[in-house]
Amino acid sequence: MRFHGYFRSSSAYRCRIAFNLKGIEYDFEQVHLKHGAQKDAAYKALNPQMLVPTLETDEGDRLIQSLAILEWLDETHPEPPILSRDPLTRARERGFAQVIACEIHPLQNLRVLKYLGQELGADADQTSAWLARWLGDGLEACEGLLAQTGAATSFCYGEQPGLADICLVPQVFSAQRFNVDISHLTRVNEIYNNCAALPAFEQAHPKNQPDFEP
Amino acid sequence: MRFHGYFRSSSAYRCRIAFNLKGIEYDFEQVHLKHGAQKDAAYKALNPQMLVPTLETDEGDRLIQSLAILEWLDETHPEPPILSRDPLTRARERGFAQVIACEIHPLQNLRVLKYLGQELGADADQTSAWLARWLGDGLEACEGLLAQTGAATSFCYGEQPGLADICLVPQVFSAQRFNVDISHLTRVNEIYNNCAALPAFEQAHPKNQPDFEP
Repeated sequence: MRFHGYFRSSSAYRCRIAFNLKGIEYDFEQVHLKHGAQKDAAYKALNPQMLVPTLETDEGDRLIQSLAILEWLDETHPEPPILSRDPLTRARERGFAQVIACEIHPLQNLRVLKYLGQELGADADQTSAWLARWLGDGLEACEGLLAQTGAATSFCYGEQPGLADICLVPQVFSAQRFNVDISHLTRVNEIYNNCAALPAFEQAHPKNQPDFEP
Repeated sequence: MRFHGYFRSSSAYRCRIAFNLKGIEYDFEQVHLKHGAQKDAAYKALNPQMLVPTLETDEGDRLIQSLAILEWLDETHPEPPILSRDPLTRARERGFAQVIACEIHPLQNLRVLKYLGQELGADADQTSAWLARWLGDGLEACEGLLAQTGAATSFCYGEQPGLADICLVPQVFSAQRFNVDISHLTRVNEIYNNCAALPAFEQAHPKNQPDFEP
C-alpha cells in the first residue's frame, strides 16, 4: 500500500505507529504541507479534503482520515489488535482517541493556526494561549478519562498499546513542540514514556522519518 | 439508558438519529450548554471533557464522544446497521463522518466561538467568515467524497441511511443556522432532503426536542 503523509502531521504519525505495531510495510509519499503540496490538483483528486494522511490500498482504493484508516487496518490486519474485542472497552478506547482527534488536534492544525494569524491578526502570544487552552484542556480530559478506569495499566486501556495510545503519543509530542506544560498529568506522562520505549513508537517519531526537516 | 445532551448540539443530534433509526428508548437529561451546566462538578465526574453527549448505559457505564457512542450502539444493537459489513465501505463511511466530526464541528463549537470573540476580539463579521470557511470547505470536501463513489444512491453510501448521513444532517442544519451558503453542493443537499423526509431524522431535529428553545 501507499501512504501519503508528512513527518510532522500528528494524524500521519498515528498511522505510522499502527503500521509498525502490525508490521505492515508501505511505500511512503511525502505531501509537503508547509509548501502547500496538499492543494495540488493530483492530491486533491486523491483526497478532496486536501489534508494528510491518505492511504492507497493495493487495490487502488483511497482511504482518508486517520481514525478510519486505523480501524480499517485493524479489520484487515487484525494481529496484534489495537482495539479490544469487548464493546465497552472499544467504546472507551474510541472515546479517548476522539477527544484527541475531534477536539484537540483540529484546533492546532497548520491551516487553523495560519488563519488565526492571517485573518484574525493573532500574535505569537495569542497563538500560544490558544494552543495552551485547547491542548491543555484536552489532555486534562484525557487524564480524567484514565482516572475513571481506576486501573494503573502500562498503557491507556491495558497491557498492550492500542488506539488510545496511538493517538495520545503524537498529541503529547505536539504539546512538547508547542511548549504546553503538561507535567502535572501523571498518567498521561507515564503512558507516554511506556510507549516511547517501544520500537514501534520510536520508529514512527517525526525525527525518524525520511522527510524530516529540523 | 440515560442520554445527556442538548437540543442544539450537533453531536447529540447525531446520537438521537441513531436511537430513532434503531428504535432505542432512552431517558433524556438536559445539559444546558448556554448556561454552562456542562461545567458542574457532577457532570464533570460523568464526562471529564465537559461536553455533550454522555451516554450512561443500563449497567452504569459512561460513554463519551458521539462517534464512539454510535459505534457502540451499532455493536450492541446491530439492527438496522449504520455501518456496512464490508471493511472498505466502513472505512469510507467513517472517513466521511470524521471529516465532519474531526474537522468541521470542533471549529464551530460554542466554546471555540466564545473564545474567538472574548479572547481574540473577533467581531460578528469575522466570526461569520470563520464559520463560512470551515463549514464551507468541509462540506465541499464531503461533496468531493460523494463524487468519488460515482454512485447516485439515496443516501451517502447506499440505499439505507448510515453513519455518514447521521453526521451529515446535523452539519447541514448548522450551516443553515449560521447562514453558510451550500446551495451549490448538489449531492449533499439531495441526501439531506432524503434524510429529512424520514421520521427518524425528523424526530431528532433540534426543534422537536423537549429542551428546545427558539
